[in-house]
Amino acid sequence: MIIHRKTARFRTPLPLECGKSLPQFELAYESYGELNNERSNAVLICHGLTATQNAAGVPKNDNGKEAKPGWWDIAIGPGKPIDTSRFYVICINVPGSFGGSTSPASTNPETGKPYGMTFPVVTITDMVDAQKHLADRLGIKKFYAIAGGCMGGFQVLEWMSRYPGCLSRAVIISTTPRVSAHTIALWSVLREAIRSDPAWNSGDYYGAAAPDRGMGLAAAFGALFWMNRQTMEKKFGLRPLDEKTPGYGFEPEFEVEAFLSQVNQNAARKIDANALIYLTRAMDYFNMTRGGVELASLFAGAQYHALLVSYKSDWRYPPQEAEEIHEALRAASIDSRHEILDSHFGHGAFIYDFHGLGPVVRDFLHNPAHSKPSSPKTSAGMK
Amino acid sequence: MIIHRKTARFRTPLPLECGKSLPQFELAYESYGELNNERSNAVLICHGLTATQNAAGVPKNDNGKEAKPGWWDIAIGPGKPIDTSRFYVICINVPGSFGGSTSPASTNPETGKPYGMTFPVVTITDMVDAQKHLADRLGIKKFYAIAGGCMGGFQVLEWMSRYPGCLSRAVIISTTPRVSAHTIALWSVLREAIRSDPAWNSGDYYGAAAPDRGMGLAAAFGALFWMNRQTMEKKFGLRPLDEKTPGYGFEPEFEVEAFLSQVNQNAARKIDANALIYLTRAMDYFNMTRGGVELASLFAGAQYHALLVSYKSDWRYPPQEAEEIHEALRAASIDSRHEILDSHFGHGAFIYDFHGLGPVVRDFLHNPAHSKPSSPKTSAGMK
Repeated sequence: MIIHRKTARFRTPLPLECGKSLPQFELAYESYGELNNERSNAVLICHGLTATQNAAGVPKNDNGKEAKPGWWDIAIGPGKPIDTSRFYVICINVPGSFGGSTSPASTNPETGKPYGMTFPVVTITDMVDAQKHLADRLGIKKFYAIAGGCMGGFQVLEWMSRYPGCLSRAVIISTTPRVSAHTIALWSVLREAIRSDPAWNSGDYYGAAAPDRGMGLAAAFGALFWMNRQTMEKKFGLRPLDEKTPGYGFEPEFEVEAFLSQVNQNAARKIDANALIYLTRAMDYFNMTRGGVELASLFAGAQYHALLVSYKSDWRYPPQEAEEIHEALRAASIDSRHEILDSHFGHGAFIYDFHGLGPVVRDFLHNPAHSKPSSPKTSAGMK
Repeated sequence: MIIHRKTARFRTPLPLECGKSLPQFELAYESYGELNNERSNAVLICHGLTATQNAAGVPKNDNGKEAKPGWWDIAIGPGKPIDTSRFYVICINVPGSFGGSTSPASTNPETGKPYGMTFPVVTITDMVDAQKHLADRLGIKKFYAIAGGCMGGFQVLEWMSRYPGCLSRAVIISTTPRVSAHTIALWSVLREAIRSDPAWNSGDYYGAAAPDRGMGLAAAFGALFWMNRQTMEKKFGLRPLDEKTPGYGFEPEFEVEAFLSQVNQNAARKIDANALIYLTRAMDYFNMTRGGVELASLFAGAQYHALLVSYKSDWRYPPQEAEEIHEALRAASIDSRHEILDSHFGHGAFIYDFHGLGPVVRDFLHNPAHSKPSSPKTSAGMK
């Protein structure tokens, strides 16, 4: 599979929900497969918080060795559920993120210095508006499908509400119509972990030592939520690193401690700390029903088909909240399916435990209209 | 209710599980009610990780104003489920903790300086051994009951296994026979939060600025686990602090963010950072079945009655694990009851949502033998 890696430069401002605007912006993106002549086979993949546009394929590192595969490589490729021999699959790094799109690490053209914390607050709406600019430039009037999980799913919902004519199918995974107080609390603590690192220096660390310790700590915190209790139990249990346990000291003695050290170190290498600060704030503000807006009204008149997928074990983004979206879609007379899957992985299941999801996505992309009688009870098994 | 606050000084060494010993040690404790002449009405309360011996009553601060009530004031007092007009209730600050017992903040008699990280690693076994010394000094040969939740419950289990003749009744709440990989992971991240604060200074901060920022961060992170998603949703929801939300900035805008700031600041004032490091490590090592020990064998021949209480919503210490203890007790022919309660508070329910637990504890202290047929299904509703 050939991976196209590009960066689109926009010399016009991007107005933002906060009232400010980016005077110019860049979007880094990857694509897999070929856009057909009718430009009707494009599938937009929206990435989550700690992922980037590197959704599929196995890139080579600078040293020529193969790097880690893209975060959804299991889903995207020739013959895979999102089949690149049929679809032109595109994943766009969202503004504010750390994959090369305009972000706090970018140079502010007005000062010639990195934005740092002078970067304006971006929202999910802004991310989708930016993606729409790129779709327009590529001549894609309507996506065959738009798919994403978690923060990626937020973007799918925004596309459905903001540009309903621009997609035929929506795949919304492990998502909610609004973040929970607990998610806001979690992001607040993660940001505090970064800010408490003296190297963070109020966000002004580019060209100096990065706040690796704070970023690593934030990532290790986060791991306790994206990997749930049962998964940790299965993966590590109480296995010691060597035979000399209990060692009655404070060095890592359990495998799970060594795993967290690794998460800590990897994150600091991979994720820009300011980007995490901005992206988590974008999630904080995600609330499709703010001010009493009726969810169904956001989808009224749309013609797309929707697939919702949730996981029983995902207490952070529980099936009940996906069901709320499902019911709103049905109230708006939109064809919607809600599949509730089993997996001990919880919120990370759509990435780390794909075998249940794969056939569901494949089937939906081929045959979006759901064939079962459209009662919530039988289609989703929820009351 | 009169609160007695005392500190017992032991000039003899306390041998520890790690192979080292404390050359001398102090135990700070509180008691409520009067010990009878037979010394047969003592109820030992074992405190949890972030609590101390201040279990009941409303102490006065230095300024003469009433401070926060003890952590289990709702349970302990005249006429309350643990009735101080009938029982002599005692709560002992565990060694390593921050309530005045010997801990990393204490002066090492061999150096004349605070122990800091030269303090030996203490375990739950060591905590119970220390408590036994104090019980001996007070002439209490057998406790009427020993009760505790979470880390307090670990201590109750150790009493049951180590000193089975020293208690008549055991109340074991929100507990497990061994910590989970997830708990070890959580403590590892909390310790890293403290260590990442430069003020921590390898634990050598006494007499200088304390690592308040690291400690506060650890506490805020911990709050995401002791207060579960549903409780946060009920308590705070997405309520903004004022009308100007979204404010598109990084100052706290949501009530839940302000709550976490408060948790952060309170913890730094209340909890000694090194104590949290040591107590969490003690929990890491809690594993009653390490090396393939059969749980039931630890209770064999004992004569006490046991009450286990767990909460359906407590995913960190789930009912299944309390049930494992219940079954082991029954296998050892010990009278045991397991009550599985509802509460949206999860792991914190035994403190923050006492109304369901109160009558169960009261009834058990009066009438420990459970009257229902002793099948696990009917007594606990578990399969």
